Amino acid sequence: MNQRTTAEGILFTDQYQLTMAQLYFRLGMHEKQAQFDHFFRHYPDYGAHQAGFCVNAGLDWLLDWMESAHFGEKELEMMRGMTSRTGRRLFADDFLSWLGANGDFCGISLQAIPEGRVVHARVPLTVVRGPFAMAQILETPLLNILNYQTLIATKAARLRESAGEALVLEFGARRAHDRGGNAGTRAALIGGADFSSNAGISHLLGYPPKGTHAHSMVQAFLAQGMTELDAFQAYADIYPDECLLLVDTIDTLSSGVPNAIRVFERLRKKGYAPVGVRLDSGDLAFLSTHVAQMLDAAGFPDASIVLSNELDELIIREIKSQIAQEAAHYGLDADSIIGRLVYGVGTRLITSAGDSSLGGVYKLVGLQGDPGWQPAIKVSEDPGKTAIPGSKRAWRIYDMRGRATADLLTLEEEDPEQLWQSARSQSGFNGDHDKSDQDKLALTLCDPRVRANRRTLPVESISHIEPLLLNVMTDGRVVCDRPTIEQSRTLRREDVARLDNGVRRLINPQLYHVSVSEKLWALQERLLSSLSTQRTDPGS
Amino acid sequence: MNQRTTAEGILFTDQYQLTMAQLYFRLGMHEKQAQFDHFFRHYPDYGAHQAGFCVNAGLDWLLDWMESAHFGEKELEMMRGMTSRTGRRLFADDFLSWLGANGDFCGISLQAIPEGRVVHARVPLTVVRGPFAMAQILETPLLNILNYQTLIATKAARLRESAGEALVLEFGARRAHDRGGNAGTRAALIGGADFSSNAGISHLLGYPPKGTHAHSMVQAFLAQGMTELDAFQAYADIYPDECLLLVDTIDTLSSGVPNAIRVFERLRKKGYAPVGVRLDSGDLAFLSTHVAQMLDAAGFPDASIVLSNELDELIIREIKSQIAQEAAHYGLDADSIIGRLVYGVGTRLITSAGDSSLGGVYKLVGLQGDPGWQPAIKVSEDPGKTAIPGSKRAWRIYDMRGRATADLLTLEEEDPEQLWQSARSQSGFNGDHDKSDQDKLALTLCDPRVRANRRTLPVESISHIEPLLLNVMTDGRVVCDRPTIEQSRTLRREDVARLDNGVRRLINPQLYHVSVSEKLWALQERLLSSLSTQRTDPGS
Repeated sequence: MNQRTTAEGILFTDQYQLTMAQLYFRLGMHEKQAQFDHFFRHYPDYGAHQAGFCVNAGLDWLLDWMESAHFGEKELEMMRGMTSRTGRRLFADDFLSWLGANGDFCGISLQAIPEGRVVHARVPLTVVRGPFAMAQILETPLLNILNYQTLIATKAARLRESAGEALVLEFGARRAHDRGGNAGTRAALIGGADFSSNAGISHLLGYPPKGTHAHSMVQAFLAQGMTELDAFQAYADIYPDECLLLVDTIDTLSSGVPNAIRVFERLRKKGYAPVGVRLDSGDLAFLSTHVAQMLDAAGFPDASIVLSNELDELIIREIKSQIAQEAAHYGLDADSIIGRLVYGVGTRLITSAGDSSLGGVYKLVGLQGDPGWQPAIKVSEDPGKTAIPGSKRAWRIYDMRGRATADLLTLEEEDPEQLWQSARSQSGFNGDHDKSDQDKLALTLCDPRVRANRRTLPVESISHIEPLLLNVMTDGRVVCDRPTIEQSRTLRREDVARLDNGVRRLINPQLYHVSVSEKLWALQERLLSSLSTQRTDPGS
Repeated sequence: MNQRTTAEGILFTDQYQLTMAQLYFRLGMHEKQAQFDHFFRHYPDYGAHQAGFCVNAGLDWLLDWMESAHFGEKELEMMRGMTSRTGRRLFADDFLSWLGANGDFCGISLQAIPEGRVVHARVPLTVVRGPFAMAQILETPLLNILNYQTLIATKAARLRESAGEALVLEFGARRAHDRGGNAGTRAALIGGADFSSNAGISHLLGYPPKGTHAHSMVQAFLAQGMTELDAFQAYADIYPDECLLLVDTIDTLSSGVPNAIRVFERLRKKGYAPVGVRLDSGDLAFLSTHVAQMLDAAGFPDASIVLSNELDELIIREIKSQIAQEAAHYGLDADSIIGRLVYGVGTRLITSAGDSSLGGVYKLVGLQGDPGWQPAIKVSEDPGKTAIPGSKRAWRIYDMRGRATADLLTLEEEDPEQLWQSARSQSGFNGDHDKSDQDKLALTLCDPRVRANRRTLPVESISHIEPLLLNVMTDGRVVCDRPTIEQSRTLRREDVARLDNGVRRLINPQLYHVSVSEKLWALQERLLSSLSTQRTDPGS
């Protein structure tokens, strides 16, 4: 257990962060201010379906980790014991002394997009500034914590899209990646799950954990010579106001549901309303339709039907579509069947099945130089992989319908919101204006990857521009309110509602525009050409 | 942090385990001895490729967890605060008092297959026996801990298959699912990775963490007006006997490798042998061939070429096959190029990309009844999903080549090893024997899913039979030696070597035989028919 705590502390990082930190120390670069951007390049692609947006999550846990992680005596002792392949000590005493005194995140400042917000590829989600050595060491844990929660919040948001207004329950603890499951539960609650079955973390986050019972309960009664009905009745006696029965241990339609209805009838006589039944196998659409019919006939039109068994956003949509087609054959109202469904989603949510990682990266974009701040860039043969250099600001632009139309990255000194505000008030006061004014009153959005792709947005087409990055940590101290899960959910709901339907599409979504300003484009070009000079003259 | 500890303790379970436990308590079943089998039904299927075997892992961490997890005052307080939807308290004081006094795993006994061993579908990997309530609560954490590590050890074993003798490094911390990454590193080391970049857990497990440097180090030099060569030289000065240089920040062939060679030449003059270079982008097969040629020409035939960038077992095989095809065009020896490759595998190992979960389950197979022990079964429309009932033993049968030919499940009182030993000694002493002896001297293996599928193994075709399940915990006390990672690796290597090549195949592998004895078949049949009686007469 002690070992586990150590392995999850400051040494929960890649070894090369430590060796690079010592190199920076040796060269006197370790306390230079450095800036890293954290962003992802591609939305999750689940194979048969793809995400058109992500939901940001994990920041609160990152802040917690940063407030406590540091190089203590135990960590320094471990590092003293690390040797190179020829047996030399890897880390020298002077570096370890420096780490002992400075090896925490007290010098680090963070800007970040709040949890729950819709976020897009290539936009910095987190901007880290601080002493080069510690900012470098932060890379691995920051990516570890933020990549996974954003991945799962995104998957949960997709389930929310396909489930509509229905309850979505997160059931994945048993298939989660070790203790990572708790982070996944939290992210699922932010992204779109209503509740989770994971008892401890749900309770700690303020959401009652949810569940029914397992097949083993019914089996235990059968093994003792009793019946499924006895098992259901026992459950109803103990949980009269939480009576949700798993009906597929023997046979759903011929045994489980008739037995559940008998128990529900006795509950009704005692004044309790049953919660419903859970189906965990078979053709869930076909069974839902028939189970709904049986529950209706017995006078339980409000009893829910909880579905589980390898659900995901596409299967939920398929089930709803099959019910819509079949219900009429049985003279039933599809909407009322669909309206009573609840979705329990396990494995495919908690592991983001189909795409089990978000490729978030952490790239050096600037370094305190002599003189002044120097933007940094890493080139790549693939223009999509070239990081956008320098200190930037990120903005979201809304059109006149209130829909998000693009995210725009600018240099730190640019303020498109200010520009737009003053342009708008000018045009508002003046009524109309001449052509040269018009020129000023438009934003030019450049595709960061392809020079020719430019888009011009007249100010009249913009209803709102907002900055996306907020200050969350200054010199190691948290300077923002810690939002509740509920507040993050509200941000998510509002942001998703402001997306175009094409971007929300579950399969082959429309690509959301992420652009850079002309000035940022020019900076990137300048750095790329200076690099290509180096390339033709290596080692000069 | 306190909250995190609580969320990873005994309440790291599904809520329904707690409500079922209270139900068992209320009915006086909570202290009845119950037996659960943990097994998986399907090998991982990565889409384009499939596993033919798994490598067992995670047991040691499960034992650690079980030794410390219990219902303390904090957990009971949380449960006191849990309410039903109408506001009633969910857990009664008498149940919570019982939990406070008995809510640990001191009554639980475990049998398990050791970590590192090759394991197969439907064979119990872990058998849990103990008081029904606590054995039920154990379901979720047991599955959480064992499913993930077995998944990752399996993936690592596949990488080992495709990498041959080459070093495989686990680089996935940044894409792992939160702290689950540490469990993944451990499992990767058992399954086939030689080392990991994850600093803390590697060191704690006794393996030196490995790494090179990141692009950010070179970028930092560039941003300060220095060159890639300066960055490489600085690295070599500080780590002369660990000099492994990332050569693709600017351009691999025109900048990175020429600069690395200059630095290597200086190192050589000082008496150091460079470790090699790392390639993280581009056509890794094409680049490896050319980089090898350049290193050879400069007199560094022993310098390694570390490859990284979304590798997995198929891509490694493709790279090797491409090198084999292309090397001759350049007059190079493919084997010597392939022989210097090292594979750094990140995301696709630590998240088991393509199949991000192992569907391990935990099924009630028996319950202490009145009188005697009662086997339990859960039926399913899919015969592959029907759990094999009762207390069982698991055996592995080896043919005369020493290859594992089948795993056999028997009733607890059956001992095929004993049977085979005595038959062998009989036939050994007697030379030949008559037909009726021959009948006794064969094992009948039944397919648990399809009645007609039987296979008869004459004793002469068997070289060895071994029991797979060992006692690891008795009444909450660990009764086995805790194997080291190195011991588990040895088991894995030996077991993999004893598999048929068809089962080891990376794509569409041959199905390994997992069978039940005739007596176990008869028990399953008897229970299934008693259930089908129930089904036609629900609620009788």
